[in-house]
Amino acid sequence: MSEPRDPASAIARRELLAAIGRRAGGAAMWRAMAALGVAGSSSYAGPVDLQGAPRGTRVLVLGAGMAGLVAAYELRRAGYAVTVLEYNRRAGGRSWTLRGGDEYVELGGERQRCEFETGLYLNPGPWRIPYHHHGVLDYAHRLGVPLEPFIQVNHNAWLHSKRAFGGRPQRFRQVQADFNGQVAELLAKAVDRHALDQAVTAEDREKLRAALRHWGALDAAGRYTRGEASSQRRGYEVAPGGGLMPAPVPSQPVALDALVDSGLWRHLTVGHEEEFQTTLFQPVGGMDRIAQALYREVADLVRLGVRVTAIGQDEQGVRVRYLAADGPGSIAADWCVCTIPLSVLGQLELEVSAPMRAAIEGTAYESSVKVGLQFRRRFWEQDERIYGGISYTDLPISLIGYPNSGYGQPGRGVLLGAYIWGPNAYEFTALPPAERVRLALRYGAMIHPQYEREFEHGIAVAWHRVPWTLGCFAAWSDEARAAHYDNLCRIDGRVVLAGEHASRLPAWQEGAVLSALDAVTRLHARIKGA
Amino acid sequence: MSEPRDPASAIARRELLAAIGRRAGGAAMWRAMAALGVAGSSSYAGPVDLQGAPRGTRVLVLGAGMAGLVAAYELRRAGYAVTVLEYNRRAGGRSWTLRGGDEYVELGGERQRCEFETGLYLNPGPWRIPYHHHGVLDYAHRLGVPLEPFIQVNHNAWLHSKRAFGGRPQRFRQVQADFNGQVAELLAKAVDRHALDQAVTAEDREKLRAALRHWGALDAAGRYTRGEASSQRRGYEVAPGGGLMPAPVPSQPVALDALVDSGLWRHLTVGHEEEFQTTLFQPVGGMDRIAQALYREVADLVRLGVRVTAIGQDEQGVRVRYLAADGPGSIAADWCVCTIPLSVLGQLELEVSAPMRAAIEGTAYESSVKVGLQFRRRFWEQDERIYGGISYTDLPISLIGYPNSGYGQPGRGVLLGAYIWGPNAYEFTALPPAERVRLALRYGAMIHPQYEREFEHGIAVAWHRVPWTLGCFAAWSDEARAAHYDNLCRIDGRVVLAGEHASRLPAWQEGAVLSALDAVTRLHARIKGA
Repeated sequence: MSEPRDPASAIARRELLAAIGRRAGGAAMWRAMAALGVAGSSSYAGPVDLQGAPRGTRVLVLGAGMAGLVAAYELRRAGYAVTVLEYNRRAGGRSWTLRGGDEYVELGGERQRCEFETGLYLNPGPWRIPYHHHGVLDYAHRLGVPLEPFIQVNHNAWLHSKRAFGGRPQRFRQVQADFNGQVAELLAKAVDRHALDQAVTAEDREKLRAALRHWGALDAAGRYTRGEASSQRRGYEVAPGGGLMPAPVPSQPVALDALVDSGLWRHLTVGHEEEFQTTLFQPVGGMDRIAQALYREVADLVRLGVRVTAIGQDEQGVRVRYLAADGPGSIAADWCVCTIPLSVLGQLELEVSAPMRAAIEGTAYESSVKVGLQFRRRFWEQDERIYGGISYTDLPISLIGYPNSGYGQPGRGVLLGAYIWGPNAYEFTALPPAERVRLALRYGAMIHPQYEREFEHGIAVAWHRVPWTLGCFAAWSDEARAAHYDNLCRIDGRVVLAGEHASRLPAWQEGAVLSALDAVTRLHARIKGA
Repeated sequence: MSEPRDPASAIARRELLAAIGRRAGGAAMWRAMAALGVAGSSSYAGPVDLQGAPRGTRVLVLGAGMAGLVAAYELRRAGYAVTVLEYNRRAGGRSWTLRGGDEYVELGGERQRCEFETGLYLNPGPWRIPYHHHGVLDYAHRLGVPLEPFIQVNHNAWLHSKRAFGGRPQRFRQVQADFNGQVAELLAKAVDRHALDQAVTAEDREKLRAALRHWGALDAAGRYTRGEASSQRRGYEVAPGGGLMPAPVPSQPVALDALVDSGLWRHLTVGHEEEFQTTLFQPVGGMDRIAQALYREVADLVRLGVRVTAIGQDEQGVRVRYLAADGPGSIAADWCVCTIPLSVLGQLELEVSAPMRAAIEGTAYESSVKVGLQFRRRFWEQDERIYGGISYTDLPISLIGYPNSGYGQPGRGVLLGAYIWGPNAYEFTALPPAERVRLALRYGAMIHPQYEREFEHGIAVAWHRVPWTLGCFAAWSDEARAAHYDNLCRIDGRVVLAGEHASRLPAWQEGAVLSALDAVTRLHARIKGA
């Protein structure tokens, strides 16, 4: 990728591609582009197309989250006789959206009723879809689920630290402009002082200086100072207006020491991470739309409200015992795709090999808490001009997420008032839901004082108290991955596992989808080869 | 802004704000926040509320673009008797959207008919609205025009230079990750070599090193290398998958010299400029939606298809002569708000003071060309996973803009195939429209070889051939601004000018809106004071 090529070869390449396009069509051309390195690479090779299942072969799918729904959808298309058992009285699993009227009972018996206004919602689980999560996006596209941009980086949102700038939140754009500007100024200085002559040739030094001046918004003297260049990035003290409104006044950058000391630079690169890069998506109306679209395709195969208690197998097949509303029962099948979270699966009666059992028991689950808060009005837009995106803080709530839809509309709005991790999540999980909401309000009011006046209703989901997952997602350490991952994913007799826990994309729906596609593809090959 | 404050004062501030909020309401609290520096500043002070126009006072508004529509809307609300004359047979001016069935005849007589499929469009003029363009956004909000995000930065779009990397386009994410990573590595090296000991204290050096490691995705040794950290930003060679899919393989960063030499770093900061920062908007369905919503409010005041030929005034009032479909005519009023572009205004018979005339004649107009291209399928999404946003190139087309709506949908799509400036714009303007389209296709195919196979229909607007503007927007030099700006904006007898040209935000609709609000506010004060 780094070696420059001569223009002639670039032209030859374009002509080759155009010729392939003309003769063999777009898909062939794209494969050729990928081979030539123009396209990106992905683990997702496109929709699977399994065919020719042996007549009457029964596959039991446990769990109707994203992995279970995808497995059921593809296995049925391949010709298998599929049954899905799901603990909840709804499909979707963690691809879950809470709306007005929904009730949720957590472990311990606390019951919450969501009172959000129609059209408002909280996604307690996943809430964004990266552009390169091709598996999830392809299902959304094929099933006609409309998507809209999820704003990850909002330059006008706040970065906040309780110990920096007197607890006063700073605009993202100002922290970014000042950090970049001062990094550029320092590096330009170092280049000028010949401190980097070993690393940068004389010719490149001049080009690097020009790049830094442009990139860092430096003045002609190579300094990052109060002026038009810096204000066009960080914002003006008095913005340019129309007619005879006051002339613009530039704003004053923050000094490097205060900035470095503040720690707010930690938040500048979230949007640089591939998983949070533009263009990020959310389904219009709530994250559960994709799972629900898949569910509509396989609803006739799914039995809701069925709690699996034991998974047995021998050389002939699998037998699963369960508890349903009408009492205990059991079901037999030839094969089983099990998508039950490891945190729950490890507590069941389970006949699998010792290595798979060790893998199931060797994987911890991450703790997390989300709090949704409904307010009387969208004050973050009306007062603070924050349209979508996220404010970050070092308070236990860690962030405040603004709705990425309904921009500028009058009426109520729901914020993600907290997305809590680590030790803070354990503390919040230990509290009753009303207390979690109260704390989220107290912390959030340090960034948005309007909280106190505008708050109406909150709901809090602590993932370690969600009865059907007992945690948020599989927290793989490098050691656990090396010791257990392959054993977890291998077909074990007549059982294969799938879900985000059986992927290298933990927590993401894409992990669940790719894991399910990989599991059913291998299972199908095994069955066909048997 | 840079001085840290002690937490006690922060708490006191919060309590003060909360108290203000409780007693005096949200707006009062927000004013207090602004005073305390938490809110941003803007030239826009909120909706104007002019009242008490002297009974029967007639104001003539020339032009029904954004400035004219806003002026008419606010003056009528204040009680004035308003008439608007508009040259085109539609309102909106440069807030213009071309859709299937539209016809457009440019200077010279070339007629183009837009053949886009229903729902697809090109905005020949403005196409994005920054979050801080409060004037435009407030009208959109008040008039119920739905907005959706305009994606400015797409990390998966291309950066392209015909003379770099053999003409092979590079993903934005890779250029950004590699530039930041290597800038961070170099600066960390300079700090380690004590080249910056004068500029950075010993204590800050350690913090700066930590910040650079985090921000640049450096490894433990402070280097930007092939590995997980860099691949999480630039993308993997083989991406992490599910189940037993191949293990991830990191990608190889581009060397600093190739990167600096490529010039592609020029495009990294577009999204850092305040005018292109998130969250940027577009009206759902085309940019003209806001102007059309304003037009609906004042349609009864507007006479379309009326070409102004002369503007006369004396101490009693103004008299405007025009040419309409039914022949020449004239109209009298007490005052006139003229929003005719200076490029056209300078050619009319016009009674204004010498300083205003000098201002009108002293302002040049920028040249620009936009080309819209309809394709059979959305190959940029399907083949290249580019959802919305912009690819940049140093070819004359300068960029390719992808539609920021209908993500993942099957069927046709329209790209902004060229947005041309400077000398290239003059060359394109000189060509017939079909030639402009042909060239946009030829250049664009160097980035998207699919062009050749998928193209269906194109349309090209060269702003210097638009009969009613004769240019794109007022190109103010610093010298022209110093010499002429105030004279242009001052009320001249009974005439005041408004439009983007009478603002410090040239080219932007916000400039037109703020200029109109400022002009009618001053005019109203003058009339009331008279």
